[in-house]
Amino acid sequence: MAVNLSAPLTLLPVSGVTIATAASGMRYQGRDDLLVMTFAEGTNCAAVFTQNKCCAAPVHVAKQHLNDSDYQARAVIVNAGNANAATGDRGHENASLSCQMVAQKCGFQTHQVLPFSTGVIGEQLNMSVLSQAIDTLPERLKGDAWLQAAEAIMTTDTIAKAVSKQLVLDNGETITINGIAKGSGMMCPNMATMLAFVACDAHIEQADLELLVDSGVKASFNRITVDGDTSTNDALFVAATGQNNKKVLKGRQLEQFSTILNEVLITLATAIVRDAEGATKFVKIEVDSGASEQDCVAIAYSIAHSPLVKTALYASDPNWGRILMALGKAPANHLDLTKVDVQIGDVRLIEQGQPAPDYTEARGKAVFEESEIDINIQLNQGSSRYHVWTSDLSHDYVSINADYRS
Amino acid sequence: MAVNLSAPLTLLPVSGVTIATAASGMRYQGRDDLLVMTFAEGTNCAAVFTQNKCCAAPVHVAKQHLNDSDYQARAVIVNAGNANAATGDRGHENASLSCQMVAQKCGFQTHQVLPFSTGVIGEQLNMSVLSQAIDTLPERLKGDAWLQAAEAIMTTDTIAKAVSKQLVLDNGETITINGIAKGSGMMCPNMATMLAFVACDAHIEQADLELLVDSGVKASFNRITVDGDTSTNDALFVAATGQNNKKVLKGRQLEQFSTILNEVLITLATAIVRDAEGATKFVKIEVDSGASEQDCVAIAYSIAHSPLVKTALYASDPNWGRILMALGKAPANHLDLTKVDVQIGDVRLIEQGQPAPDYTEARGKAVFEESEIDINIQLNQGSSRYHVWTSDLSHDYVSINADYRS
Repeated sequence: MAVNLSAPLTLLPVSGVTIATAASGMRYQGRDDLLVMTFAEGTNCAAVFTQNKCCAAPVHVAKQHLNDSDYQARAVIVNAGNANAATGDRGHENASLSCQMVAQKCGFQTHQVLPFSTGVIGEQLNMSVLSQAIDTLPERLKGDAWLQAAEAIMTTDTIAKAVSKQLVLDNGETITINGIAKGSGMMCPNMATMLAFVACDAHIEQADLELLVDSGVKASFNRITVDGDTSTNDALFVAATGQNNKKVLKGRQLEQFSTILNEVLITLATAIVRDAEGATKFVKIEVDSGASEQDCVAIAYSIAHSPLVKTALYASDPNWGRILMALGKAPANHLDLTKVDVQIGDVRLIEQGQPAPDYTEARGKAVFEESEIDINIQLNQGSSRYHVWTSDLSHDYVSINADYRS
Repeated sequence: MAVNLSAPLTLLPVSGVTIATAASGMRYQGRDDLLVMTFAEGTNCAAVFTQNKCCAAPVHVAKQHLNDSDYQARAVIVNAGNANAATGDRGHENASLSCQMVAQKCGFQTHQVLPFSTGVIGEQLNMSVLSQAIDTLPERLKGDAWLQAAEAIMTTDTIAKAVSKQLVLDNGETITINGIAKGSGMMCPNMATMLAFVACDAHIEQADLELLVDSGVKASFNRITVDGDTSTNDALFVAATGQNNKKVLKGRQLEQFSTILNEVLITLATAIVRDAEGATKFVKIEVDSGASEQDCVAIAYSIAHSPLVKTALYASDPNWGRILMALGKAPANHLDLTKVDVQIGDVRLIEQGQPAPDYTEARGKAVFEESEIDINIQLNQGSSRYHVWTSDLSHDYVSINADYRS
């Protein structure tokens, strides 16, 4: 059950983008599991991928195609249920072949199509069912299928993740920006993300788009963790079709766009945490006044990854000693416990390293029982800060990952 | 339910060591939770403690007492159920006070007594019940209470962990060495261990004992992990009473002793993993032929800490792609997937980065269903190696840590 997350009600079309989905039947029955999204000629794009060294075949192929096409992608093909990872040379050939099939059907060149996969690692794609499903897609391409796109890429997700925003620039022009994402486990993106696709109709130069995506990812997908496990397939793809606003965005307008892009990315990233496998809590961990951002990052993730902190959160048990334990084991360079303050919600737990005098178990219990919990650590060592979003560790997390292969 | 672990049947006394236990009632009812162990005059000792920067009050006090007494400890006092961690100045005073009480009762100096605590973090010791229990201990000190000692220090342990060994040196002399340990969660010792106490009757010089303990810990307690959470209270204490073998151990005899000490430490460390919270599997992860030990360590722990690998192990599900994922996300400097071999038990999964041609789901299932599982990774990059022992992640781990405060 996702934490305070609903499926999107309405999603605007984005000029220059068409979408089609299909049910291949490769793994799931009775639902779409295949997505093709196409982009108008002249679309610029940027993408970031997992840093996992065992990255999947489609990640290799997509990176190569982006280089070959000078980041002028015309389509993406995404399948859910099979990650095409740890599949060796045959997996690589199959990823290339799926691009070739889409390219032939749509009249693109193969290297203008980027493949993405998500699902079980270590199994080969069934290319005959994939081929049949791809055959049916081109005739069904349309502009208003963003929700279907978000649904088609789900695996253990319980709710489709999508967002649509419009931005009126200070010169009066309107930009539409949409995003979809999937993911709820094997979730600790590292300089990348789970599968997420964002498109807007603005005209943005390639180099600018890359810079915006890079900084946007650092503020969004790189700050979420469910279980500390970095997927083999993580990818974020952002396209700017340039179909609405013919002038290239620069300066002040580019900054306005950057703000709205980050909002879209943060909405999608936190939606993934809200729908984390088995999640019952949505938790923000903020580490402030550190000597370095590196220290703040180390402490934030040490707390976010601690199974004991996560099970206490699940239990609504104010067993806050575990937060101190996770703080103390973090590989931070400048940590002086006698300076540390720890607060959860509005309840102070630790002041200058000592138990807070006004803390009571009842006050702790009240704040741990909330579905949205803010943990704030003041290191009082400097001016650096960092925050991450995470979820709890529940029986359902174990069930989802142990009772069947996800 | 522990994995292939039984309570010890017989434990020899160690000359120069007396033991008493008591039920203070501070947290648990109807069981001993307090241990005092005394050592003959002239006993040398060595100890290692947690590297958690939020270490507990008794860790601070024990370190200080060891320095003040020139490592000539005469007693340890251990309480289970309350960690006396994150308890501020008052916690520190209470730890000192409990040493003072034992010292007065037994005729030692306060700094010759070392305090150890294990249990819930963030609660103050109840000094009046502790004081009453300490009062009853000295008159009950005796040599043959090692099993009672192992039972008195248990928290979420399901089985007492103790071992007793005798070593006949090549000069014909006999040494007795005993060890006890507790621990099953918050378990990822870092240059230290959970609570473990080892004593022998050999005469070993202080400096030699420290070296032996240092290398022994690296081969045992520092290679186990249950949940990646490093406790605030981890400690290993080793005493050599010198009561049996009056000659100082040197050279060849010291080496013989070192071998048996390491056996004792590895037996205790692996017993902790076998009795890990909720464990149904005992897993050894061996990373061989790495470019550096650092790379092997990073990969071994990345696999051992992965919740997705651990839930697959729990499910006996040969979802080995998750092992590749955890391998690939490890911060190793020299990892070339095209050279990697992965094997579980006698089943080859990956050969030179490609799926092994003779692998079948049935063969994978058979080896994942074992209660003892060996995962072997060959990096084929160099001659370094490392191994760790770990457990799986089960529903019971979540229950134990969420359903009540442990």
